Amino acid sequence: MARQNIYDNETFFEEYRKLREREVNANNLFEIPTLFSLMPDLAGKNVLDLGCGSGERCVDYMKRGARSVTGVDISEKMLAAARSENSAPGITYLNMAMEDVGALDGVFDVAISSLALHYVEDFPGVVRNVRRLLCDGGIFLFSQEHPLATCYSGTGDRWTRDENGRKLHVNIANYCVEGRKESTWFVEGVQRYHRMFSTIVNTLADSGFRILKMVEPAATEEIVREYPEYYDNYHKPDFLFIKAVKTAAEEGDRV
Amino acid sequence: MARQNIYDNETFFEEYRKLREREVNANNLFEIPTLFSLMPDLAGKNVLDLGCGSGERCVDYMKRGARSVTGVDISEKMLAAARSENSAPGITYLNMAMEDVGALDGVFDVAISSLALHYVEDFPGVVRNVRRLLCDGGIFLFSQEHPLATCYSGTGDRWTRDENGRKLHVNIANYCVEGRKESTWFVEGVQRYHRMFSTIVNTLADSGFRILKMVEPAATEEIVREYPEYYDNYHKPDFLFIKAVKTAAEEGDRV
Repeated sequence: MARQNIYDNETFFEEYRKLREREVNANNLFEIPTLFSLMPDLAGKNVLDLGCGSGERCVDYMKRGARSVTGVDISEKMLAAARSENSAPGITYLNMAMEDVGALDGVFDVAISSLALHYVEDFPGVVRNVRRLLCDGGIFLFSQEHPLATCYSGTGDRWTRDENGRKLHVNIANYCVEGRKESTWFVEGVQRYHRMFSTIVNTLADSGFRILKMVEPAATEEIVREYPEYYDNYHKPDFLFIKAVKTAAEEGDRV
Repeated sequence: MARQNIYDNETFFEEYRKLREREVNANNLFEIPTLFSLMPDLAGKNVLDLGCGSGERCVDYMKRGARSVTGVDISEKMLAAARSENSAPGITYLNMAMEDVGALDGVFDVAISSLALHYVEDFPGVVRNVRRLLCDGGIFLFSQEHPLATCYSGTGDRWTRDENGRKLHVNIANYCVEGRKESTWFVEGVQRYHRMFSTIVNTLADSGFRILKMVEPAATEEIVREYPEYYDNYHKPDFLFIKAVKTAAEEGDRV
């Protein structure tokens, strides 16, 4: 199946870096705090970071006491940034697609993926490989774009607005039509793979994971007071988080 | 907490009965087939039906070999219909709110609820009671209105249409605002309780259930060919199904 490497697109790479360097963005306000609120104890743990990008989180995981962090990313440009900006003893960066981690050796205690799995076509394959790489009781924690975001394709505004441009509601179409959706984000033709909630949940359940926690972070009143543009998060969350535990084989058997 | 008994409203009761008597409706096309596709083997089992209404399903469960079926409903009018139309040896109808099943004695193998839980404010309370009433390894299978439906409040059209009235997309607002939503369905002021996917999943996980399967039934191509009005199900499913198994206490412990 296709392995998208949009982060090696020159324009995308530059624009994405600029976005993440902004002091206030949805990542800082919602994604990173939620990710760390769900983080298991990393002390002494071997951590796999799927879609590690430029490696900021790998450093964070080491600071939390991880024994090792293996960061995997398909983008050479992102990994070049990671190696120059976020190298540290214990961190290994590997240039490979998430879909190919089945080739890795080693046993990990925790697998983390931040905002990368919506780029992956073969989600069941990644989940199977993660399960194989995790120890018994190992944790799989990931965020992805929310299914109400990934279902969108096209280049138009996905919001209906009043005459002042204020967002009234999000326009949802084809939520039940899964698969590749193309949209424009910095560049045209960014491919994301839409999966319904049920597909994500069933893939984990069928592959031998038990969901411990699902989070759809919404704007808090405090955030909206300070950054009114984020009130649209009341209508549609940007992100979906799942924390799951690898179950024993027999527990994974279907009833 | 409030216990809504809208089915004892005269107008609602009559209109609802008419809807369900139509040969083709969303229940016949999607809800009932999906419910039975997820049904565990009922042979020799004691079944609890939460929100049994007029009891058609209770008869179906007996036909599938159930040892007993206990149908619980808050509406006296629905239960009167159940007793006159769907009585059978082994079926017991009880006039009580789903929220009060904690008062029941007995151990059940399977608890089923079809399209009733979105009327319940205290979902965690119902889930706790169901868990207590189930045997080890017991199955909880329920359908409810889909979260993209329960998030809606108001009386206006929830669709954006083209000049010919054809539905283009569903207008989603306040998905992240949970709780009571009032809308008009046959009568004004029907109260449904909106819960995000994450709240439903976490309530089950935190209460000692492991999700085996989640289904959001969409229109099939065959259905849309025969009944074109159901193409809107591609945009927004009507229903959410969850099949979960009661886990041992220690498995329910949070990691």
